[in-house]
Amino acid sequence: MKNALLASTSTLHGQKYLEYLLPEISSLFNNCKEIIFIPYARPGGISHDEYTNLAKAAFQEMSFQIKGIHEYDNPKEAIEKCDGIFTGGGNTFLLVTKLYKEGIIDILSKRITEGLPYLGTSAGTNIAGLTMQTTNDMPIIYPPSFKTLGIIPFNLNPHYLDPDVNSTHKGETRETRIKEFHSINTQPVVGLREGSWLELKNNKITLRGDLSARIFTAGNTPYELESNSDLSQLN
Amino acid sequence: MKNALLASTSTLHGQKYLEYLLPEISSLFNNCKEIIFIPYARPGGISHDEYTNLAKAAFQEMSFQIKGIHEYDNPKEAIEKCDGIFTGGGNTFLLVTKLYKEGIIDILSKRITEGLPYLGTSAGTNIAGLTMQTTNDMPIIYPPSFKTLGIIPFNLNPHYLDPDVNSTHKGETRETRIKEFHSINTQPVVGLREGSWLELKNNKITLRGDLSARIFTAGNTPYELESNSDLSQLN
Repeated sequence: MKNALLASTSTLHGQKYLEYLLPEISSLFNNCKEIIFIPYARPGGISHDEYTNLAKAAFQEMSFQIKGIHEYDNPKEAIEKCDGIFTGGGNTFLLVTKLYKEGIIDILSKRITEGLPYLGTSAGTNIAGLTMQTTNDMPIIYPPSFKTLGIIPFNLNPHYLDPDVNSTHKGETRETRIKEFHSINTQPVVGLREGSWLELKNNKITLRGDLSARIFTAGNTPYELESNSDLSQLN
Repeated sequence: MKNALLASTSTLHGQKYLEYLLPEISSLFNNCKEIIFIPYARPGGISHDEYTNLAKAAFQEMSFQIKGIHEYDNPKEAIEKCDGIFTGGGNTFLLVTKLYKEGIIDILSKRITEGLPYLGTSAGTNIAGLTMQTTNDMPIIYPPSFKTLGIIPFNLNPHYLDPDVNSTHKGETRETRIKEFHSINTQPVVGLREGSWLELKNNKITLRGDLSARIFTAGNTPYELESNSDLSQLN
């Protein structure tokens, strides 16, 4: 009985932070008193406080109080007791390293699996998958493992970008990179375009937002899945 | 007394594999009888044989024989005895994992430092830096370490791409990613555009090719370095 919202991005072009998701977030955290923000991914290397203040401002507009996990003496205990969690984007390697260092990977996974309301954006969404191995981020720090929360039975690629057919650049496209992933890994990968999110509710995983998602399974041609499709059987 | 050529890419748009580098490669491997190709990065998941055949064809045009390292019973011994090495591009995580698994990181670093002619393209260039942490690749496999050959006293970002000023995409630009790297790491990073390469010769590191490179140092504004500049003092 999971209750989560896994968004490709926190911010759409020309909009404010989390703006396009406000109704969904309000509904997700309805009646939650103690919501914890996990700022460990630190986009651009900003401080945990600076990042948490950004989340606080957005949540205040919905009349929610939110507190950074770094403000607690015992992060593990905080996760055990809270009513909801939001993990923001940034660098996934940094986020995962810190989650392991604080020893909260298991308790996070357990509580979200049991139904704790969870919001992830970008890196915070990536960690909901089986592993972080389909992140777009640079390996700026060496994490103890690539294994992540496994809230969903597949991997995610946030900020999914279609190949630019006019490009003369020889760096790999996103599709090529995911194909390389499948040359040695078997789990499906969902390419979540910006503006898309996965809704986990009543044991169902549903694609939301205006756009389709691109689904990659090992050894097969990728395909498009329309918005509002059920992804519960993808594994 | 190093003797190496570290290229951003193997192939320029509209050209054949290694075509733009043929005169340089001919000169680098002049008189080398036994040249070893390291195909471990396996672009697109192709086999070691398929990848080696591609390199063999290009080297044959220069009348060089080249042999895949996987064709030797003892890769470490092969590295110890050969006259030159070429490491091709693909996935850097895969390449580094395999180099550690075969136990050849140290001998590779030692021989190249002592002057063994070395050609790297893309991932094969990336590993010449202090660490592989400024790669663009997906972490499709978990390497034992991010530490690489350290032939040069800084890190490299091959296929360097300038930010697209018209983009509405919220994924990080290359420049943002390198800034994140510098939020917790201190070594300089050279953004090598496609068509550029570093020439290591007579204890000098020189930028070659038509384009400038973008230099990132921790805490400072990035700057452009013109072609033919000396990078020996960058550390």
